Amino acid sequence: MNQAHKYVYMFSEGNGAMRNLLGGKGANLAEMSNLGLPIPQGFIVSTEACTNYNTSGRVLDNAIREQIDIAMVRLEYMTEKRFGCKENPLLVSVRSGSRASMPGMMDTVLNLGLNDKSVEAMAKNIDTRFAYDSYRRFIMMFADVVMDVDKHLFENAFRQYKEKAGVTQDVELNGEQMIEIAEMFKGIYKDAKGEDFPMEAKEQLYEAIQAVFRSWDNERAFIYRRRHDIPYSWGTAVNVQSMVFGNMGDDSGTGVAFSRDPSTGENAIFGEYLMNAQGEDVVAGIRTPLSIDCLKDEKPEVYAEFIALAKKLEAHYKDMQDMEFTVERGKLYFLQTRNGKRTAQAALRIAIDMVNEGTLTVEEALLMVDPRSLDQLLHPIFDPEALNNADIIGKALPASPGAASGRVYFTSQDAMDAHARGEEVILVRNETSPEDIGGMQVAKGILTAKGGATCHAAIVARDMGTPCICGCEDIKLDYTTKQFTLGGMTFKEGDYISMDGSTGKVFGEQLPTVESKITNDFAIFMKWADEHRTMEVRTNTDTPDSAARALEFGAQGIGLTRSEHMFFEADRIPKMQRMILSETKEERLAACDELRAFQKADYLAIFNVMCGLPVTIRLLDPPLHEFLPKSDAEFETLAKEAGKTVEELKKQSAMLHEVNPMMGHRGLRLAVSYPELAEMQTRAIIEAAIEAQKTGTRVRPEIMIPLTFDVKEYKFVKDVVEETAKAILADYDGTLEYMIGTMIEIPRACLMADEIAQEAEFFSFGTNDLTQMTYGLSRDDAGKFINDYIEHNIFETDPTIKLDQKGVGELMKTAIARGRKARPNIKLGICGEHGGDPSSIEFCQKLGLDYVSCSPFRVPIARLAAAQAAIAQKRGEDVANKG
Amino acid sequence: MNQAHKYVYMFSEGNGAMRNLLGGKGANLAEMSNLGLPIPQGFIVSTEACTNYNTSGRVLDNAIREQIDIAMVRLEYMTEKRFGCKENPLLVSVRSGSRASMPGMMDTVLNLGLNDKSVEAMAKNIDTRFAYDSYRRFIMMFADVVMDVDKHLFENAFRQYKEKAGVTQDVELNGEQMIEIAEMFKGIYKDAKGEDFPMEAKEQLYEAIQAVFRSWDNERAFIYRRRHDIPYSWGTAVNVQSMVFGNMGDDSGTGVAFSRDPSTGENAIFGEYLMNAQGEDVVAGIRTPLSIDCLKDEKPEVYAEFIALAKKLEAHYKDMQDMEFTVERGKLYFLQTRNGKRTAQAALRIAIDMVNEGTLTVEEALLMVDPRSLDQLLHPIFDPEALNNADIIGKALPASPGAASGRVYFTSQDAMDAHARGEEVILVRNETSPEDIGGMQVAKGILTAKGGATCHAAIVARDMGTPCICGCEDIKLDYTTKQFTLGGMTFKEGDYISMDGSTGKVFGEQLPTVESKITNDFAIFMKWADEHRTMEVRTNTDTPDSAARALEFGAQGIGLTRSEHMFFEADRIPKMQRMILSETKEERLAACDELRAFQKADYLAIFNVMCGLPVTIRLLDPPLHEFLPKSDAEFETLAKEAGKTVEELKKQSAMLHEVNPMMGHRGLRLAVSYPELAEMQTRAIIEAAIEAQKTGTRVRPEIMIPLTFDVKEYKFVKDVVEETAKAILADYDGTLEYMIGTMIEIPRACLMADEIAQEAEFFSFGTNDLTQMTYGLSRDDAGKFINDYIEHNIFETDPTIKLDQKGVGELMKTAIARGRKARPNIKLGICGEHGGDPSSIEFCQKLGLDYVSCSPFRVPIARLAAAQAAIAQKRGEDVANKG
Repeated sequence: MNQAHKYVYMFSEGNGAMRNLLGGKGANLAEMSNLGLPIPQGFIVSTEACTNYNTSGRVLDNAIREQIDIAMVRLEYMTEKRFGCKENPLLVSVRSGSRASMPGMMDTVLNLGLNDKSVEAMAKNIDTRFAYDSYRRFIMMFADVVMDVDKHLFENAFRQYKEKAGVTQDVELNGEQMIEIAEMFKGIYKDAKGEDFPMEAKEQLYEAIQAVFRSWDNERAFIYRRRHDIPYSWGTAVNVQSMVFGNMGDDSGTGVAFSRDPSTGENAIFGEYLMNAQGEDVVAGIRTPLSIDCLKDEKPEVYAEFIALAKKLEAHYKDMQDMEFTVERGKLYFLQTRNGKRTAQAALRIAIDMVNEGTLTVEEALLMVDPRSLDQLLHPIFDPEALNNADIIGKALPASPGAASGRVYFTSQDAMDAHARGEEVILVRNETSPEDIGGMQVAKGILTAKGGATCHAAIVARDMGTPCICGCEDIKLDYTTKQFTLGGMTFKEGDYISMDGSTGKVFGEQLPTVESKITNDFAIFMKWADEHRTMEVRTNTDTPDSAARALEFGAQGIGLTRSEHMFFEADRIPKMQRMILSETKEERLAACDELRAFQKADYLAIFNVMCGLPVTIRLLDPPLHEFLPKSDAEFETLAKEAGKTVEELKKQSAMLHEVNPMMGHRGLRLAVSYPELAEMQTRAIIEAAIEAQKTGTRVRPEIMIPLTFDVKEYKFVKDVVEETAKAILADYDGTLEYMIGTMIEIPRACLMADEIAQEAEFFSFGTNDLTQMTYGLSRDDAGKFINDYIEHNIFETDPTIKLDQKGVGELMKTAIARGRKARPNIKLGICGEHGGDPSSIEFCQKLGLDYVSCSPFRVPIARLAAAQAAIAQKRGEDVANKG
Repeated sequence: MNQAHKYVYMFSEGNGAMRNLLGGKGANLAEMSNLGLPIPQGFIVSTEACTNYNTSGRVLDNAIREQIDIAMVRLEYMTEKRFGCKENPLLVSVRSGSRASMPGMMDTVLNLGLNDKSVEAMAKNIDTRFAYDSYRRFIMMFADVVMDVDKHLFENAFRQYKEKAGVTQDVELNGEQMIEIAEMFKGIYKDAKGEDFPMEAKEQLYEAIQAVFRSWDNERAFIYRRRHDIPYSWGTAVNVQSMVFGNMGDDSGTGVAFSRDPSTGENAIFGEYLMNAQGEDVVAGIRTPLSIDCLKDEKPEVYAEFIALAKKLEAHYKDMQDMEFTVERGKLYFLQTRNGKRTAQAALRIAIDMVNEGTLTVEEALLMVDPRSLDQLLHPIFDPEALNNADIIGKALPASPGAASGRVYFTSQDAMDAHARGEEVILVRNETSPEDIGGMQVAKGILTAKGGATCHAAIVARDMGTPCICGCEDIKLDYTTKQFTLGGMTFKEGDYISMDGSTGKVFGEQLPTVESKITNDFAIFMKWADEHRTMEVRTNTDTPDSAARALEFGAQGIGLTRSEHMFFEADRIPKMQRMILSETKEERLAACDELRAFQKADYLAIFNVMCGLPVTIRLLDPPLHEFLPKSDAEFETLAKEAGKTVEELKKQSAMLHEVNPMMGHRGLRLAVSYPELAEMQTRAIIEAAIEAQKTGTRVRPEIMIPLTFDVKEYKFVKDVVEETAKAILADYDGTLEYMIGTMIEIPRACLMADEIAQEAEFFSFGTNDLTQMTYGLSRDDAGKFINDYIEHNIFETDPTIKLDQKGVGELMKTAIARGRKARPNIKLGICGEHGGDPSSIEFCQKLGLDYVSCSPFRVPIARLAAAQAAIAQKRGEDVANKG
């Protein structure tokens, strides 16, 4: 016996659990085979063969060829047909099938095995026209897909032939004409390739299989994988299946059906059927398919069999099925089944119904819904009809979901003015900074030319629930002339565009939007999720309004309040600027005192909204120069207020300039230099907390010190905070529950976590910065080259979106182990954007974090992802649909 | 028995090895006591007591007080005197004494124990004038040092008394007058403090001890520790020693002597002596001391005893001794001995002599010299006399050693123009960037207002051997008016300043410099070092000239050639700019081709200089926008050359702007986006290598890929390099030995080292960037707040200068362990600036690196430090003098 590695599996040798090896389609065909369903038999060339092919110089290994040959002999035996023979020829389809469904992304060849001899047999057994029609289709498909011959050569020749013959419809051509066309196509092939069309069926098969392997690398597949986070390394399997024909007359046909309605989730067969046709006719839209119900009337016994088997499949897979079937001369065949794609609304309905029907347990139902799909339920969407007809002028990173239409403005001030005039505004900028907050607040959508998934615009937009697209590098924006170009069009200030933050698409016109409907199912389902998860879900938010929204979405506290965001409002920023540009400690203290009043009011409002839930407040984090005036007008205003000259202010402002602000004078480094800042913020927090408690609101502030890399600097700032708090609380009758802890966002802090934990009551992983520093990768600048990394398969996923479990994750593990060693009950959370990403949440569950925190609109996603992670952990498995 | 922790030690209870606990002075007194030398007896309050005092709210613990009391009773018994009594009173000195010698940095109180009663006894036993002179000195010293009373109050009153009494010299005052002055001083004390001068000797003692503890925190001590890298946590011990008096008449005296000449190292007693005087008279310069030889003539028997004991001490400590002694009424007392400070020249001479004398082994001699002192031997210094009279107008980070005088210029161009006119130039800038290279090359010295020890200016200056001072934040520089202010003075373009890159001092005038002399001793000593070290020492250099200098200094190869530095010369930069601003790959390839010719010539020149030694060439590293034109004039020049408009170029240039360039599009990320860059550089390297070999020069290029964080990106670029090299070598008859490896400078690379090592033949730790990323601390921006960190004792040393062994070091250990696991023979080196720092070099030895690489002038330091580290490792100890 040949002991070579097994690369080829008959359907009967596999099963549904072998998805990684056989691909989704192959595994399901194997499973259907085992269930005894009527399927055309065949075999699968595994994903390992694909990897072998792609990593060994794109040569099909001899061992693989041999195994294919043997499988083909077995298939001939099963079908009682002979491959490539002139008697009773076996024809096969050759289709891709990867682990994850990638519909239409890769290549397929039908009717393979036809050649000048077998086509004759087919003509004799069935029908001449049918046989040669199939042959000419095969020649063209094989030439196009496998041999890279331009298919327009065939299409043009076919059109000319029809003109000459005086016919308009294909069906008007008779058998003789089809023979001529097939001959003509072989000629075109020979002209293009310099050799005859291959008559050897095995050669056709080898070539077709390799073409499918190569199609894993085509651009469609590349884009699809990227959007769906499918790793390049998975590869695709190839399914070789004996052909059945739905176009053998009126007792034949083909169809596609879902076992439930994929839009609404209603429990009723939903699908389409076409008499006397092949699958491609349905797809090509040459004839309009009929509702599946027609089959019921025309072929009641076939319909009954189909319904029974569909229910059997659904019950077997415990999920709604998307099935392709063919009826050949009255006999039903299943060509494929898979778990069907569905809207979020349908997903919830189906999950709940299946629990009620007793098909699924609640745990199974929870695992069935992709958490990311919940996003659809919370944001407005474009009217689907308008969307179908709209031209996409650009596409970039979908940074914050939802659809928006409006007039473009390029500065925060212009956006606010337009909003005041009642216009709907899309803010378009190269990038945003905290000073743009006013314009961002009034915008219906935000579009930036630069930045990645965790750039300023993305973070703020997600917090506000505003649709946002980032890193649209094709935009050429000119602030001076107030216009930009994209997709060959120029947009002036005030022109309309539309944008879909869920897909990253930009449209050059106004499109109508509609609100998504939230059903009662959502509440039921999320309640189940909450009952099953073990991690808390908190939110990252800076305002009482968005805190209130997060509460509605189920947040159990605030994991991150960026106190600095409160300083950008028009009445506060000059005071902040005065504070920063103070030349003496006295000046600074006076400015601090004014700011404190604002801060206190902000915190009080948030405490009142959160009403007893924990509220984590991060002390001032960004480099001070972010707050400084930019324009001459702003400098002049400030000069008047501060009683200084513009020159003085500009000089001082220039001194604050930093080469790498992300690694500069920020975070607790500011508090080390100016302890009065930490003191001021602590006073505001504690005084607000006392005031809230006096009116009967329970308050649980958690004061968070950012950017720690060493216990000594942490302790220095902690001491300032603690002493300030104690001094205020000394005069207070009641007790106040509060904690002081730190963000863990610098690699060194992870390594020093044992020392830091001796002083810190909690750790909150700031995985945005931790990822930046661990990779040495600025999130503001990576947009420029991250595409190159994805194109070259260096990044399978963007680590700013999906937590890098190997590198950053190891640092987190180290931090947790060392932190817990020093303080066993230390509270652990995550407040980076990864806290809203399902695969990262699953990792957090494995790490044993107490909570994840994310932007308000991601809270439901996090709740479900946390439930799935907890269930998977209990079962000792990974979550399947984490993407 | 009281089992309390022991805080107080009689001299007889200690020994010389107890330096950490007893301080250097205390340990040496204990050792001398054990050796039977004549010393005034006493006891030591340990450094642990200091830590206890400073960390427990500055209260002297009762247990410590009790132990002091007991020690004092024992001292009374030994001296047969009574502390604070009117009969035969015991007087003591109270002095600081930390682990490391910190001469004059902390406080001392003499004659303690004097009060109204004991002074009477002293007057009766010795002399009234002597007694009350001592008393008034004690009152003033105690008031000043211990009780924080302004000593000018005493000095002014004393001056007025002398005026009134009509005398000019202190010695003209008689005993009665001294009594009056002492009374007057007690009155001043009472006015200032609101209470009587303390008459209780024990109270005086407790207060004085606490004052010494507190003096660990004074500013002088702070600055000294910082300069000498002495950790704050060490604390100081306090020595309480019975007084002896050199001012008891002509058979008394006091002196200071070295057992060898501290300037030249000559083996001859060197010192000064003053008859009938106390130590402070010598220091105060009231009387001019005599050469120690005078003692030989005047008190031959005392001199002989002194010489014998000095030799005994030197032999005992195996090092040149710096001794204080007093002769009281003909009896010799040693007050202190310590290893003497010396010039580098003397250090080498003494070490070599002691080996020749048989006192030391070569290993011991190697361990005795501080590697950092070798710097003195290589750079010019200021004429010491001129230096004494010069005013220091500013002081900042000594970034590259050596003295320089010249006229100030503020732009690279102005500096080059002035140099062309024959002027000596000091380049003064806020900070430098690669485009300043021209001005830096012609400058005698470089002074910057910003930046730390590893900023651009510092690195380049060290490479060029040019004196450099960085981060002089007090400089207010105005480029438009071409002037700056510092230390209250304004300097216009063309004005003279002087600067000492070894001390960080800036002078507002022209000072003459002299060359240091290198003796034959240097060669002998460095040969010994080379024989003892196990690590290779390489150099970081970019030019053939500086490579040649590094060879003279003993470099065994190049550990880092920054290929980009070659692009900044006037004839190359426009080509580089064209390459960067190319809009198509074709344009870029054409520009690359021109650059390749330059690169090849550069590499060839370096290969020829290095002649068979390994040369590590790092591929292009900095963000591209560093190379772009800055001024309008430069843009116009480039526009003409490139056939584009200034506007186009400015737009493209703006697109290259980065928010955090240190974490942006740089390093191998450039090669991922533009593989043609790596290809061009590889071609230049390999072609140059072949050309060199053809002329008979052996060549060993090591191609280094910078900024790796993942094996996949490394492999992508490595494949480009390897394929390019193989293609060229395919046409070459001979064989070329070359390696491809990577810098390890990103935290994630350390964690992924096992995967990376599968593809990389060597690792070179880029600890500058690794420190930046591990701390999240930009070296260009840290200057602003790093002082706050040192002042608050958060940083004991600056991690950009001295490797952070805990955090960064752990990552290095991880990288080495994982790298070796994957590739056991992987070559390991360091090319960050830490490669020239002795304590970091010792750490590298422990890590088992194959080589360290540093700037040319640091090569001798590294050679000695590596030898010391190897010896210490063999002995299983740490190097003592690593600072």
